[in-house]
Amino acid sequence: MEAELIAVGNELLGPESLDSNTLFLTRALAAIGIRVARKCTLSDDLAVLAPTLRECCRRSPLVLCTGGLGSTEDDRTTRAAAQALDVDLIRDPEAAARLRDWLAQRQTPLREIDERQAFRLTSAQWLPNPLGSAAGQWIPTPAGFLVLLPGPPREMEAMFIQHVRPRLSALLPAQALFTRVLSIVGLAESAVDALAAPLYREFTNPITTILSTAAPSVELHFQATAPTPAEAQARADQLAAAVERRVGEAVFSRERETLAGVVGRLLRRRRERLAVAESCTGGLLGKRLTDASGASDFFNGGVICYSDAVKQEILGVPSAILAKYGAVSSQVAQELAHGVRDRLKVEWGLAITGVAGPSGGSGDKPVGTVFLALEGANSAALVQHLRLYGGRAQIRRASVQAALDLLRRCLLADRAVE
Amino acid sequence: MEAELIAVGNELLGPESLDSNTLFLTRALAAIGIRVARKCTLSDDLAVLAPTLRECCRRSPLVLCTGGLGSTEDDRTTRAAAQALDVDLIRDPEAAARLRDWLAQRQTPLREIDERQAFRLTSAQWLPNPLGSAAGQWIPTPAGFLVLLPGPPREMEAMFIQHVRPRLSALLPAQALFTRVLSIVGLAESAVDALAAPLYREFTNPITTILSTAAPSVELHFQATAPTPAEAQARADQLAAAVERRVGEAVFSRERETLAGVVGRLLRRRRERLAVAESCTGGLLGKRLTDASGASDFFNGGVICYSDAVKQEILGVPSAILAKYGAVSSQVAQELAHGVRDRLKVEWGLAITGVAGPSGGSGDKPVGTVFLALEGANSAALVQHLRLYGGRAQIRRASVQAALDLLRRCLLADRAVE
Repeated sequence: MEAELIAVGNELLGPESLDSNTLFLTRALAAIGIRVARKCTLSDDLAVLAPTLRECCRRSPLVLCTGGLGSTEDDRTTRAAAQALDVDLIRDPEAAARLRDWLAQRQTPLREIDERQAFRLTSAQWLPNPLGSAAGQWIPTPAGFLVLLPGPPREMEAMFIQHVRPRLSALLPAQALFTRVLSIVGLAESAVDALAAPLYREFTNPITTILSTAAPSVELHFQATAPTPAEAQARADQLAAAVERRVGEAVFSRERETLAGVVGRLLRRRRERLAVAESCTGGLLGKRLTDASGASDFFNGGVICYSDAVKQEILGVPSAILAKYGAVSSQVAQELAHGVRDRLKVEWGLAITGVAGPSGGSGDKPVGTVFLALEGANSAALVQHLRLYGGRAQIRRASVQAALDLLRRCLLADRAVE
Repeated sequence: MEAELIAVGNELLGPESLDSNTLFLTRALAAIGIRVARKCTLSDDLAVLAPTLRECCRRSPLVLCTGGLGSTEDDRTTRAAAQALDVDLIRDPEAAARLRDWLAQRQTPLREIDERQAFRLTSAQWLPNPLGSAAGQWIPTPAGFLVLLPGPPREMEAMFIQHVRPRLSALLPAQALFTRVLSIVGLAESAVDALAAPLYREFTNPITTILSTAAPSVELHFQATAPTPAEAQARADQLAAAVERRVGEAVFSRERETLAGVVGRLLRRRRERLAVAESCTGGLLGKRLTDASGASDFFNGGVICYSDAVKQEILGVPSAILAKYGAVSSQVAQELAHGVRDRLKVEWGLAITGVAGPSGGSGDKPVGTVFLALEGANSAALVQHLRLYGGRAQIRRASVQAALDLLRRCLLADRAVE
């Protein structure tokens, strides 16, 4: 089945915002085998809305329309749908009572204007809103169905999952869908594609999609369909496994974990702890490690050593080494990893020092020069010299990913030895 | 004038990506007084494209269409435009020669399929592509003009600025546009609106827009048009100033600075330095302070004190205070601010400790309980108790903004005293 999506709202036509509800809907519809054929963003002008809805409902078996169900003057979607389908609106006393209750719970009296939300197309079924006052509507059309959903993403998503998806699933042939995602670090999208494309190119089931994320990482999505969930998963996993053998250890997760999440899992399993020393990343590595709750199991903290004074006084980097090699050097990185491991009394010390730019670069240490160092209990310090490209934010993110990956690979290698 | 935007490409209809070209175009068109009336995303199916283009060109004086100008099988925009307008395509030998040269410079031979890019509508003028091989087209329509632009954002933006905007400006009455942005911290969007709406509600020039950002902050945009740039600015600034008097010190910038940028500017002017102690934010405050290059002027670094051991051993928080009040308390926040200021030898120590959740909350310290402390050279420590709502990421971002704002207000008050 094909669907058409309409987002309603003047604010979505300004230079500041995009409608993002369609991303959720596209994904949720794909998961039950419905493809989005076109998307449209319209102002809340009745003269635009009504004829467009009419046209969409004539050509598409499924039209989902988000926004414009509120109680203010510029919420006109219900009226537009009635005009588009030549159907009358009726005031539903039960809906009005529900609305009054909902508002009363929030100590808000029912205003006359709120009454708008109690009107539905005579042909419509209400779709309850689990999180707000604006109910949706499920409306038969000449070609299939028109679904009116509220604009706020939380309300729209909850309503879709609880009330729209079950109705759609009932209309469709049973078809299971499974997506396996391989997350990859340390390789560019083009490099991953060069390795993987020869393997996936000829398959249309699973469908393979390659994506670069901001982390930065690369994701390969293998989406398979089959009569049962187990068959769909087997199909996706067979191809994913072949690709993983080819890409190797750069694959850090098959379960959509973050890289920091994987590192945390490996440390937790060993009951070991980590501390970080960050110069050019200024706290981003610590932030990433603590993005998920429970990081205190494996993360003690760290030192943001943005000045030489902090490197020396808090982390004990000898001033002679700073003077001889400069703050951005493998020697200082090693001292920082050692210092933070020693001072914070943990098994692993991980350090980043570099030139994130745009200022501060020099001939032998251009912007993007970054040194990582890792010191563990049983191993000599590992040092890595990176040469990164891009803007400041990109260089900082790539430094953090590389540091996490250095630790991940070390933890994996160590495990292999055990 | 009103415009309609069309984005072409199957990939824009998938669950992973949104068309973002329209954001640039909406902003760039607004700057010359053209309003976007509707936006549409279409697959590159000729049977969808041609009739939609026909309809758009009939109703809208300006239709901008991005994507589908490449040389592959699924680049069908030119053919669709020809069908939509009942105009023939011709092969342009000069365009073919330019294409050959362009490819030759890149050591790429001209393939037969590339020749597609040498075809234009007989009625069209070429729009040169400064950064790629796909030229755009400027095509008269019954209602005005259809503009075909390439999909890659860099190419599309460069082509728009160099070749489309001058053509559009020539069609329009001279009109200058100026936008003043007030950035606000510490107030919810609804609170800002309650203060500001009575002042801006009756004005249509400037147009006022209110926005919540993820920082979190609230922005008020005042966009004014006038015959000259100076008049437009005066018009926007007059209303902005009235609103600013009403909103007060919560306005932290009129120049689209970040809050960390404002704090950095105030510290730099005083030649004073800052260090941070972060518990629940795990490094995010340091990250924010170092997002822009040059932060070493005012930021020495800090300590990510994610465990009690680090709070005690690196920052000298007495274990008795930790035991008596708990790590999330005003007393510990004060000790952290003092410890980091003292150990890192700077004028200002700023500390955050709290429960970011989702786990770790308790009856008297639920998730969202956060204590901030600031210690300066000339003042007793300031402590602030926050009660925040939302998910972990939201609570951490709001904590960082509140900490930066505490320091900003203190620096401003101090300046007032001087």
